[in-house]
Order: sequence, then structure tokens, then C-alpha cells
Amino acid sequence: MNKSFSYAIIGTGAVGGYYGSLLQRSGKEVHFLLHSDFDHVKRHGLTIASKDGDFALFPVNAYANPYDLPRCDVAIVALKATANGILPNILPSVLNEKGIVLLLQNGFGQEELISAIGGVKTIVAGLCFICTTKTGPGLICHQDYGSVTLSQYRNDNGPCGITQVMQHLAADLAAAGVSVDMHPDLVDARWRKLVWNIPFSGLTTLFQIDTAHVVNSLPLQRLARDLMLEVVEGAFALGRSIPEFFIDKMIKNTQKMHPYFPSMKLDFDARKPLELDAMYNKPLEAAAARGKRLTRIAMLYEELSFLQEKSISLQQNTGE
Amino acid sequence: MNKSFSYAIIGTGAVGGYYGSLLQRSGKEVHFLLHSDFDHVKRHGLTIASKDGDFALFPVNAYANPYDLPRCDVAIVALKATANGILPNILPSVLNEKGIVLLLQNGFGQEELISAIGGVKTIVAGLCFICTTKTGPGLICHQDYGSVTLSQYRNDNGPCGITQVMQHLAADLAAAGVSVDMHPDLVDARWRKLVWNIPFSGLTTLFQIDTAHVVNSLPLQRLARDLMLEVVEGAFALGRSIPEFFIDKMIKNTQKMHPYFPSMKLDFDARKPLELDAMYNKPLEAAAARGKRLTRIAMLYEELSFLQEKSISLQQNTGE
Repeated sequence: MNKSFSYAIIGTGAVGGYYGSLLQRSGKEVHFLLHSDFDHVKRHGLTIASKDGDFALFPVNAYANPYDLPRCDVAIVALKATANGILPNILPSVLNEKGIVLLLQNGFGQEELISAIGGVKTIVAGLCFICTTKTGPGLICHQDYGSVTLSQYRNDNGPCGITQVMQHLAADLAAAGVSVDMHPDLVDARWRKLVWNIPFSGLTTLFQIDTAHVVNSLPLQRLARDLMLEVVEGAFALGRSIPEFFIDKMIKNTQKMHPYFPSMKLDFDARKPLELDAMYNKPLEAAAARGKRLTRIAMLYEELSFLQEKSISLQQNTGE
Repeated sequence: MNKSFSYAIIGTGAVGGYYGSLLQRSGKEVHFLLHSDFDHVKRHGLTIASKDGDFALFPVNAYANPYDLPRCDVAIVALKATANGILPNILPSVLNEKGIVLLLQNGFGQEELISAIGGVKTIVAGLCFICTTKTGPGLICHQDYGSVTLSQYRNDNGPCGITQVMQHLAADLAAAGVSVDMHPDLVDARWRKLVWNIPFSGLTTLFQIDTAHVVNSLPLQRLARDLMLEVVEGAFALGRSIPEFFIDKMIKNTQKMHPYFPSMKLDFDARKPLELDAMYNKPLEAAAARGKRLTRIAMLYEELSFLQEKSISLQQNTGE
């Protein structure tokens, strides 16, 4: 095994804070970039209330300014995709000569932008299957699951196989207690993740309901399946084959899962921007570029775009 | 001109009450079947608050029991389509030997059921383009428009042309102050009406907004146009050709119209059953029978079915 990686957490929210804390607890060197929680975390550290057992970290290496972080082997990018515009101001000064980015984000098409940033040499996407929420300053509530699928980006969107960097990251995460697996083909892995995300993020946001209400309603479960089938068709247009039983598996998993509000629904409640571009528009564009129209997904995207537009105009009207 | 028709109004709501009152005001013999408003209307008559000028009718021939109505030349059926199950108990005793039904209902596929009821000889559908709401007992608020397109039903769904019965009804309505036109082909007329109803009834109900919000939102206007295009495709599958400029015309009309809540949205607010079968399911089935899938309309139907299901389960939970 190589020398242990050091980690910079860019975006210490529900996801970045959770995995960063696990890495620090397992003995890794971790540096956390914070925004609104900086004062609190500097003074009190981070607290993880987890179904696997609560724990607190103090002190933590907390930073409000990205230029104060030491250069690290790995930058874990766990911002909302909607905030990725700040990465060109952060990554060049945070990465060392290894230039590894571990991208823990939903959706699509972000790797291409990030790979163009100075100092970025390798991007490994970590697709997280986790229910976690930041419930207060420095306080993360980990409700369920937590596994990560690692897959490396290649700029021609072909499969990378299982690389050494992936294996090193997987070993570090596994040592921190994370259930990890590795996928040789990022495009395939992303579309598999969309099979769940596209229906459940969208329908829970549209109807203001949890995941259980989607699978327990006859018309909504039917619609969720139809949306999933379109995701499978989109993947197929890009040369990736997702078996149809994968849809059944996702429905059954969701039925067994604790009722859950996906992050898009929580973002909507908090009147934050929704990750519509990364989760809907980019996959629609990728499929359209191969001549495949995904009609239901496009309709859901229009509906969510209206909700987003309405939410923004409400904020303007109330002067928030 | 023949001897004047006598009219029975089956369902004295926003639509039946409005047109029935106009007919009575113009000197026609009209008999109103009422339900919850019977006592009030028997005692105080009907009041129409109209943008064309308010008027009150007293006395009116009001009935709580369909068997008390005298037999009439024409039964104007203006129930919600969801209540049509009671017609076999009403029409045979209300119709005289002429057996004419004037059906003032949204949607689709009801004529076939009604034509099987004893005593029904001729069904003329009246497609109303009107904004009207019942705002209190015996009180109808007519906000805008009011025109009626008459078209006669033929059991093979072919065009009927302009029949004598249609002309007689048109003359009576015109004498009552209604702007009337006649359409030789009911299937074509129904699908033209769906071009407006399918997007605007559905989207205003789904998002709890008025018609202006639909046409003034970029994503929703786009979605409304896509839904309209599917209606045109559905009509085409049934051998009817609706020109695409008709879509532009409907969008422009709606932009000029006062912001309006379609009856489906009002039904939803009042936790009444929605006319989903007549307005969505029946047209979907008619197109599917010709091998045409209308994907967006089917998705909107699933979404509205979920809302209806949720509204019913809320009623059950609160014991209403």
C-alpha cells in the first residue's frame, strides 16, 4: 500500500462532512473547508449522529478560506453541483502534484468541467447511496445506508477499468468503515444512479412527499417505473446496457428503505437552487446527442423548472 | 320554426344553471333539477351575476326529485361526468317522445353510455367555452365567455353534419343570448376542446395555479404546447386533422383571458372527484385503440390520479 492520502473536504455538508469525519476518525489527515458553519466547527468540531453509532470529532482542521488549506493528495468535492462555479478558485491551490479529485455529487457532466481546472489530473467519481442530512451547524444526521461506488473519469467517456488511484481511495474508505465498490465504467455507473435519482428526486419534490409515498401509490409507482425505463433507454443510446430487473430491484429497495426525503426535496423546502441541470438537463442532452428523446424525463424537468422558477419569484416577492 | 322546445336542466350547477336561466329569461319553459340548493332556489329563485349584466329569476320550476319533473323535449345534462351514473334513473322519466339530450360536459366517451339509456333518441353535445362558477346556493357567477359549439353524436363516431335538432337548439340558445356555432363532426369538436382542456385543467390542478401562471411560465407554456401537440396527434390517429396554428390560437386566447381556475382545479380544492376518466383516460384509450401512445398526457394522468388518490386518503384520515 502506498503512503496514506491526505484529504481536503471541499463542501462540509451532509455528504462531505460525513465521509470526511469517517476518514479523520480512521486516522487520515483531513482538512475541512467550511462556509456558514466555520465558527461553530472551529470551536466545537463536528458531530455525526449516525444509525451506526454517534461520534464527535474535536479538534478538526477547519478553514473558511480555501487559500488557507494545505495542499492535499485528494480534494473531495462534495458541494452541490450548482456551486461548482467556485471550483476554479479553489482546486489549483488545494491540490498537490497528485491532483486527485474525488467527486461526491449527484448527476452528470460535471467531470468534464472539473477536468479543465488547473492542477486536476485524475477525477474519481464516488456515487453515494446514502441518506444523510445536515441538521445544524457542524451536526450531521446519518439516517441510512452509506455505500460508495468509485469509478474513474476518462475524457472520451470510455471505461477506465479499475485504476490504482481507485484502489487506494477504496482502501482508505473501507478502512474508515465505508462499504465501497468499484465500477470500471463511469458512464454506466452514473446512469445506474440516475435510474433511482430521476424518478425519486423529481416526484418527491413535485408532490412534496417522501420516497414511501411514491412507491406505495399505484399511479406514482407506475410513473416511476416508466421514468426508470426511459433512463435505461438513455443509457442504451450511450451504449450502456442496464438490465430491466435493475428497475425492480430499485423499487424493492425503496420499499424496504426508511421513508426518505431526497436532497432535492430538502433543497426545495429550503428554497435553495435545485440540481436540475446536473440531474435532468445534462442526461437529456447526452441522450439527445445520440438521437434519443426521453419524453417523460423532459416533462418532469419542465415541471421541476416551473417549481424552481416559482420558488425564486416567491423569494423575490417577499424580499428574502 | 317548430314549436318551442321545453327544457329539463339535469344538474343546476355553474353551467346548467347559467344556460337554463338564460333560456327561461328568453321565455322558454325550463324545469330545474336541484340537489343541495333545492330549498334555497324554491324559495328565492336563481341569481346570475354575469359580466354581461346581473339578473335574477323568480319563481323557477325547481325539483328535488327527478320523478316530479314533467316530461320535456330536451334534457340538458350538465352534471359532472363523474355523476353520470345516476342518469339511467333520471332520463327515462324526464324525456318525452322527442328524446333529445343536450350534453354540456367536458371530455369524452359519455355519449356512448347515455345513448344506451331508455328514451334517449338524439344526443347533441354542447361544448361550452365559458368561465362560470357556482359561488353560493342558487348563485352563479359568470366571469367570462359563454359560447357553445353544438355537434350531434352518431354511434359509429362519424360526422353527423348539421341536423335539424341542432338547428332548433341553436336557435333557442341564440334567442337566449348565447353565441352558438355548429360543428358537423363531434369527434373533431371534442378533440379541439381537449386541446385546451388537457393542458390547462391538468397543470392548474397539479400546481394549484391559474391559467395565467401556465402561459406566463416559460417551462409550463412549453409543456402546455407539447401536451396540445399530443392532443393533435391523438385526433390525427382518429382521422381528424387539427391544424397546428390552432395551438397558437389557444395559447394567445388564454393569455388574453382573465386569469381563471378551470373547474377541475376548483373540484380539487373542494375535494370533489376529478373528471379524470372523461378528460384523460377516455381520450388516451381512444388513441391507444388506434395504436397511438400519448406519453405526456398519460404522465399527466398518472400525476393527477395520484393527487386524487391523496385527496381521497386525506378525507378518510380526517374522517370527512
